[in-house]
Amino acid sequence: MTSALEQLKETLGEVDDLQRTAAVLFWDQETYMPPGGLAGRASQVELLSRLAHERFTDARVDELLEQAARETADQPASSDDASLVRVSRRLYDREVKLPIELVAEMARAESEAQPVWAEAREKSDWKIFEPRMRITTDLAKRAAEAYGYTDRPLQALLEGTEPGVTLDQVEAIFSGLRETIVPLVKHIAEHHDAVDDSVLDRHYDEQRQISYSLDVVQRLGFDLQRGRQDLTRHPFCTSFGRDDVRITTRVKRDIRDSCLFSSIHEAGHGMYEQGVGANLNRTPMAEGASSGVHESQSRLWENLVGRSRPFWRHFFPSFQKAFPHVLADVDAEHIYRAVNSVQPSYIRVDSDEVTYNLHIMLRTELEIDLLEGRLQVEDVPEAWNQKLEHYLGLAAPPAANGCLQDIHWTFPTLGGFVGYTMGNVLSAQIMESVRGDLPDLDDQIEAGEFSNLLGWLRTNLHEHGAKFTPNELVERVTGSPLTVDAWVRYVRGKYGELYGLD
Amino acid sequence: MTSALEQLKETLGEVDDLQRTAAVLFWDQETYMPPGGLAGRASQVELLSRLAHERFTDARVDELLEQAARETADQPASSDDASLVRVSRRLYDREVKLPIELVAEMARAESEAQPVWAEAREKSDWKIFEPRMRITTDLAKRAAEAYGYTDRPLQALLEGTEPGVTLDQVEAIFSGLRETIVPLVKHIAEHHDAVDDSVLDRHYDEQRQISYSLDVVQRLGFDLQRGRQDLTRHPFCTSFGRDDVRITTRVKRDIRDSCLFSSIHEAGHGMYEQGVGANLNRTPMAEGASSGVHESQSRLWENLVGRSRPFWRHFFPSFQKAFPHVLADVDAEHIYRAVNSVQPSYIRVDSDEVTYNLHIMLRTELEIDLLEGRLQVEDVPEAWNQKLEHYLGLAAPPAANGCLQDIHWTFPTLGGFVGYTMGNVLSAQIMESVRGDLPDLDDQIEAGEFSNLLGWLRTNLHEHGAKFTPNELVERVTGSPLTVDAWVRYVRGKYGELYGLD
Repeated sequence: MTSALEQLKETLGEVDDLQRTAAVLFWDQETYMPPGGLAGRASQVELLSRLAHERFTDARVDELLEQAARETADQPASSDDASLVRVSRRLYDREVKLPIELVAEMARAESEAQPVWAEAREKSDWKIFEPRMRITTDLAKRAAEAYGYTDRPLQALLEGTEPGVTLDQVEAIFSGLRETIVPLVKHIAEHHDAVDDSVLDRHYDEQRQISYSLDVVQRLGFDLQRGRQDLTRHPFCTSFGRDDVRITTRVKRDIRDSCLFSSIHEAGHGMYEQGVGANLNRTPMAEGASSGVHESQSRLWENLVGRSRPFWRHFFPSFQKAFPHVLADVDAEHIYRAVNSVQPSYIRVDSDEVTYNLHIMLRTELEIDLLEGRLQVEDVPEAWNQKLEHYLGLAAPPAANGCLQDIHWTFPTLGGFVGYTMGNVLSAQIMESVRGDLPDLDDQIEAGEFSNLLGWLRTNLHEHGAKFTPNELVERVTGSPLTVDAWVRYVRGKYGELYGLD
Repeated sequence: MTSALEQLKETLGEVDDLQRTAAVLFWDQETYMPPGGLAGRASQVELLSRLAHERFTDARVDELLEQAARETADQPASSDDASLVRVSRRLYDREVKLPIELVAEMARAESEAQPVWAEAREKSDWKIFEPRMRITTDLAKRAAEAYGYTDRPLQALLEGTEPGVTLDQVEAIFSGLRETIVPLVKHIAEHHDAVDDSVLDRHYDEQRQISYSLDVVQRLGFDLQRGRQDLTRHPFCTSFGRDDVRITTRVKRDIRDSCLFSSIHEAGHGMYEQGVGANLNRTPMAEGASSGVHESQSRLWENLVGRSRPFWRHFFPSFQKAFPHVLADVDAEHIYRAVNSVQPSYIRVDSDEVTYNLHIMLRTELEIDLLEGRLQVEDVPEAWNQKLEHYLGLAAPPAANGCLQDIHWTFPTLGGFVGYTMGNVLSAQIMESVRGDLPDLDDQIEAGEFSNLLGWLRTNLHEHGAKFTPNELVERVTGSPLTVDAWVRYVRGKYGELYGLD
């Protein structure tokens, strides 16, 4: 007779197949689908999501989870089987709490909100988007109620993207960062002449940017036998299983929103997905541990590797060879400095490593205030601009470059920005642990040797997939809880030297 | 209360969504999927096919069909709703006859047979493939038993690809063709100097072939707002719904297996799918009427349009402009003659319009003999070579270029070749009807005006999707039953003139 565990695995495998298939539909929609395909695609995606939800929340899964828990009671908590039961139970208990009508309402709200947001941003008019933002906030509140929480609604939503992470933890991180960044940004501003980044604005052949980027991510360790790169308007990474991971990038004439860094960022996500243990295949653990942990990998490769001096010492000769006329008069150090220039700016996705987290704090604080009733939807633009002035010293922008810039508020939930800052902070903390084990990491990078770094990440982090919660994983990987200390050391050291601060 | 008809439509819509999604997975697999994706993809496709099958063969569908039949009893047979019930009932009654174990066994056999066939063809050794061919034949027999038939097993299988077409009809077509083609090929052979096709072997830039082909199919009427073209090893057409139809093509340095004609052929299929009425969306009628009718459209555009003199009079100047150095010394008439050269050859997919049907007859006759016990699997190579000598006057080839050349016998069914010949014959019969209504068609083609031809096909054929059976449709479109007469007139006229026969 088949054990409950085996039956559970079979059902979860099917749920996984359905979700991965929905991911293929999404990838195709963003990369190659002709415009006519949109209507049919929406109905296909909706059906697959519904089938996956129905299959996963079936009462039979509850029974199987219970029986499988008994069958695996003697196994250590970190074993694959015990983890499968634990992780699936957590996801099951959460997913059954959302009434199916609310799930449908949320899906509908999202697709309805996006064209309204696009129009509002086009016309730079918050009033157009305001009714949709009320719906977003209302749905987020209702979802939080359905999931349940003690005193703070965002806590219930955060549990979905960062299981086990508390809002107190997040706010402690924010306040630690605020203390460092706000004065650091001012200090850098006084020395802004130290870095000349005008080389980024030259004209780089687009096709060559794309092929060069693909070459770089391959050399970092993104496996093209088990993945590929395509072009999209907004770069992303998606996985159809560890052996088929798709990243996308975008390209412009200049390299300010660089194709190269987009590719490295997404390849960071991609190498994480490619590194998930084959033993976790077709289970809910066959993915990254959380949005924040995922972002730690993309940021580690993009910033701590890709924007490092040894990286440019290694890659500059080939980069110069790819663009010989454009780069005839510059050297590795010049590019290294240019890609690390710090400048408060309006747009989150274009912002540098130092100011980026301020953009996240600003948004998350507004979301908390909305959910806890201290802020009304109509007052969002004003609150946005106040914080912008306070954190970044910038005057109020048109709404298109302010509170209408991100697509995230068309999603029928809130709290989605937190992972970006968790990722930034965690990337530095992980990198300190890596350096403990690989003291000559900089020499390796300068020699174009990335396999020890990737190997370290694989063994310590990637292989576990979503077996552990973010906090458990941080403890396992770094030996201490998540704090801002490593990140603060990293930015103070790097930017202090770059800008000649004392 | 929702009518049974509405509930039926909803269920059939979901079945359609699942099937289209499986088609997206297949398209991705053939176009862009990295090698690592294969294993995961197989499990995703298998699940979707199973879900579609389960949903469609559910006993509730039987009930809904019965009730919906009563609800639509007063509607004319050709109405959308009455047709939906009639067509779905036919498909349902057929699909429930296959035991689910046999369905699974057939799916497994297919995936297992393909690598064996690839190896056998590689080594040109029938003995390697023989055991798999026994399984193919056995499964085809068992499927035929399950579907049921009076005296000829292939009849039961044919019903799946060409509903309502009898094996007697097919054999009458074959014998009509045989009478014409065998002597015609001999007659042409005596005059083979009349056509010089060496221009096809020159070197044509591959990228330019691809973009030129895309340009041509767009001008014929393939809509890139609702479709696209990509590269694959074996060209095909697949539809994710009438508004998202994907065709693929392939390219070599020479134009003997031409990228252009591959593209036109697949675009012929594609325009059919794009032309299916929007009213049939998400129903089992939202596709071509049968393999044969589908092939009539691809062949009509590829051969009766694309290999016609007025076509080349129109396109030659732009074709020459695309390959100015290669084509400096030739003219439209030269290309027209070259792309119509007739030469008995071993490989079906490379063969010309005249000899092509002989390849189909040969295969189908062997399949009938296998199923009816007159031929043993181990004797296939010998039987193949005998027929090859008899029909095409060719000496026995290595098995790789003989009975191992086609992938079709890895499919756990037989009878799949019939549609190719039905399509060829039907394309000529339809074209005679078109010319009755558009007497200046050749002038239109020479002027690059294809919209009246496409419009005629849309109105008379494409819009109906799979509402009518092939025989019903042929009667509706051409006013008479399917016969070889039009095709015989067409090849005798065209090739008589080309080769200067009397």
